[in-house]
Amino acid sequence: MPTNRRTILRAAAALPVVAGMTSGTAFAQAAPTEAPKPAAVPAAAPPEVTKILAHYIVSSGYDDLPANVRKEGVRTMLNWVGVAIGGSHHQTVDIAASALGPFSGPAQASLLGRKERFDIMNAAFLNGVSSHIFDYDDTHLKTIIHPAGPVASAILALSEMHPVSGKDFLNALVLGVETECRIGNAVYPNHYDVGWHITGTAGVFGAAAATGKLLGLSEQQMIWALGLAASQPVGLRESFGSMNKSFNPGRAASNGIFAALLASKNYTSSDGMIEAKRGWANAISTKQDYKEITEGLGQRYEAALNTYKPFACGIVLHPAIDAAIQLRGEEKFTADQIKRVELKVHPLVIELTGKKTPQEGLEGKFSIYHAVAIALIEGAGGEKQFSDRAVRDPAVISLRSKVVPVITAGIKPEQVEMSIELSDGRVLRKRIEHAIGSLEKPMSDKDLERKFTDLAEGILPTQQTARIIETCWKIEALPDAGEIARMGARTGA
Amino acid sequence: MPTNRRTILRAAAALPVVAGMTSGTAFAQAAPTEAPKPAAVPAAAPPEVTKILAHYIVSSGYDDLPANVRKEGVRTMLNWVGVAIGGSHHQTVDIAASALGPFSGPAQASLLGRKERFDIMNAAFLNGVSSHIFDYDDTHLKTIIHPAGPVASAILALSEMHPVSGKDFLNALVLGVETECRIGNAVYPNHYDVGWHITGTAGVFGAAAATGKLLGLSEQQMIWALGLAASQPVGLRESFGSMNKSFNPGRAASNGIFAALLASKNYTSSDGMIEAKRGWANAISTKQDYKEITEGLGQRYEAALNTYKPFACGIVLHPAIDAAIQLRGEEKFTADQIKRVELKVHPLVIELTGKKTPQEGLEGKFSIYHAVAIALIEGAGGEKQFSDRAVRDPAVISLRSKVVPVITAGIKPEQVEMSIELSDGRVLRKRIEHAIGSLEKPMSDKDLERKFTDLAEGILPTQQTARIIETCWKIEALPDAGEIARMGARTGA
Repeated sequence: MPTNRRTILRAAAALPVVAGMTSGTAFAQAAPTEAPKPAAVPAAAPPEVTKILAHYIVSSGYDDLPANVRKEGVRTMLNWVGVAIGGSHHQTVDIAASALGPFSGPAQASLLGRKERFDIMNAAFLNGVSSHIFDYDDTHLKTIIHPAGPVASAILALSEMHPVSGKDFLNALVLGVETECRIGNAVYPNHYDVGWHITGTAGVFGAAAATGKLLGLSEQQMIWALGLAASQPVGLRESFGSMNKSFNPGRAASNGIFAALLASKNYTSSDGMIEAKRGWANAISTKQDYKEITEGLGQRYEAALNTYKPFACGIVLHPAIDAAIQLRGEEKFTADQIKRVELKVHPLVIELTGKKTPQEGLEGKFSIYHAVAIALIEGAGGEKQFSDRAVRDPAVISLRSKVVPVITAGIKPEQVEMSIELSDGRVLRKRIEHAIGSLEKPMSDKDLERKFTDLAEGILPTQQTARIIETCWKIEALPDAGEIARMGARTGA
Repeated sequence: MPTNRRTILRAAAALPVVAGMTSGTAFAQAAPTEAPKPAAVPAAAPPEVTKILAHYIVSSGYDDLPANVRKEGVRTMLNWVGVAIGGSHHQTVDIAASALGPFSGPAQASLLGRKERFDIMNAAFLNGVSSHIFDYDDTHLKTIIHPAGPVASAILALSEMHPVSGKDFLNALVLGVETECRIGNAVYPNHYDVGWHITGTAGVFGAAAATGKLLGLSEQQMIWALGLAASQPVGLRESFGSMNKSFNPGRAASNGIFAALLASKNYTSSDGMIEAKRGWANAISTKQDYKEITEGLGQRYEAALNTYKPFACGIVLHPAIDAAIQLRGEEKFTADQIKRVELKVHPLVIELTGKKTPQEGLEGKFSIYHAVAIALIEGAGGEKQFSDRAVRDPAVISLRSKVVPVITAGIKPEQVEMSIELSDGRVLRKRIEHAIGSLEKPMSDKDLERKFTDLAEGILPTQQTARIIETCWKIEALPDAGEIARMGARTGA
């Protein structure tokens, strides 16, 4: 790490230092004569964000990664393979695979959980769709980015055509996640609030960075790859609840490969596509905090902050589901005794999951009413609880009409206060500070294995599932990371 | 047209009518009791823009097109085929074709001016790049959208795999252009000003609409195709002057096909992706004028307002080039007599074409300094005047330093006032109200043929070029529009 750190600082020293953008940062050391100005004063020009980021990506190696970051990278990969296998036979993937089949290039890459093979861009798209369709994938809580979808989909497909070691694969995965989450931090929440699906808009940078890393791009080529990625943001929140949502990480993955492949042949872009006046951040957000991208590269890792869902739905529903399952386990009552379920929630809960009468499983994932009702009735929040069957269950429909979320000042998105009025006069209460699966109460390795096994059930033979889990855990020892892709596919029989 | 008109009105009558959005429009007839409110009052909710547009696209046929719209559609096609052939051997296309070759699907579609064949999405991308690389393509002046790139690239490729009549092809071309230009109108200029390359961001809708039309999508499928298109905007202005600029119409074309193909298999999206609160227009622009999309469909045609460039560079440079060429023809002087060239211009001219010292031909297209210098020296503004040779010519470099654009109140983007101070004391003046190639002084059919022939010179044999021109003019009589694609490719020899 020291060498890498020095080269980054050297690069930073050559840049115009902007007061207010760099004060208190490592970069400020390069220009000690600059007096920091108040943050409220807009900087004259941002630092060369795209160049700094590209430099970091091309120069940081596996040996530079701290042990905890490596470990979280492995967990990220394991969880992603599990959800991609789990979603692989959803109608959404069937449709997409049948639509794209006649246009695919050579059979370069596997689809997790399926038999077909596609060219790497189409395979990346389909695995990306598959891994997000249940809304059960990983989450970077600061931005609500689902990091693995765009990045792992891209490089797993690439690795089948362009063999790489498990260490290099893991490094590219971490760098891709780091890239998209830092870019997300720079524009969140304004960018997300206005309607962009940040997993697809920031994710395309992660996919391009990771693909470009494995292709061995030069710094200039990486700058162009990020520029071509900036030209292809994907996804709007209005599509949540339709197949279009899982389209977004899939398309971010294939767009990122597209960008990196072109850049690898010297297809040019601008050198400042992220930060330029008419570039990505200004066009797509009213907030641009470039420090989030450029500061502490190689020192602090957003990739270490990844979390994994115990419930198959939007993360803002997790505290409520956790509360419902806990109360159901702790107290004696039946669903027909429930008169009213009041939830004190953050406004985002209503904004994102306010669907009152979902008609299909996918819509149920965006309904606080459904999620709480099914959790109280079935004591779970897995994929089965967000199926078409579940949202059409008369008992669930009856109970969901009694769920009353109340936007409450002082309640954070990760909190909830549930109170259940029963017909016998009891009122049951539960306050959740951090739901299971959060950074504070993370899923254990065993939890992740159990989730993986549940997801793969009925799709792959039990023994094969066990082998994939084992192989994911030891990815750093693999001479060829593409083995995971081939192992995760359905065999001919 | 009457039948079609009635069905649109019937659909509109079923929609919630929003005062202020519909006043004075055809739709207002359906709800005469609604009193119009001042436009400044924000409407409570926009009309169902995506549905209205989708309904129009699926229900409007070739017979509904007025003669002048058909004619302009044919001119749009002819001009586009010419510029795509002309750009087909630029290094940008060579690089892209070599990068994508190993990943292409079956050889379904031709590249204009080249020998290779690609799957339809990659062929559409490459023809789209080719047609925009010289910045010599068509322009919808109200939005600076280059309409044909995204749309014609998409459907010409499709038509080789999925044969369609010339009439159906022309209808789809017009509907695609209409779709992208109307959507562009709704968000221009705010959307463009902040940095989006509107040809790629609005163009993807045009490509999806036209492709979906030829695939025979139902209204619901067309709504989804527009939704998946909304999820894939392409391009930022920061990339102007690099290969990334021509990437944008190419990628809009392939993204549009991707959207329509998925929708054709019932891959779903939201029903209101254009106008919803967290949809495209709100995310991507601070201005949303939905009347521009929904009013007068089938009555007034943006597609009839297309224009064609006599000069191979950004449209805002055309008045200055026109002035320079006219003065050069009218007066006797040589370049070394010129002391100063002052130009009174609109601010957009500096913003878009302010590169003072372009190093490459592509950059020259974004330099008012270069454009005026080369036009004064060579009396032309064709592709040869924006080559690497031209921008590196010492005489041009010397003269461009004497060019002084001055932002002047009251000068519109389509106007310029040029005054040239000569060493002998003369001052030559020329004011341009509308440059050649504008709507007011359009390129004639003969002009378009000459431009096409110049562009194809050295790429295709003269006889083949003449045959393509003839075939484009008679496109409405073709039983199979794909003939144009095959005829425009280089043959094996």
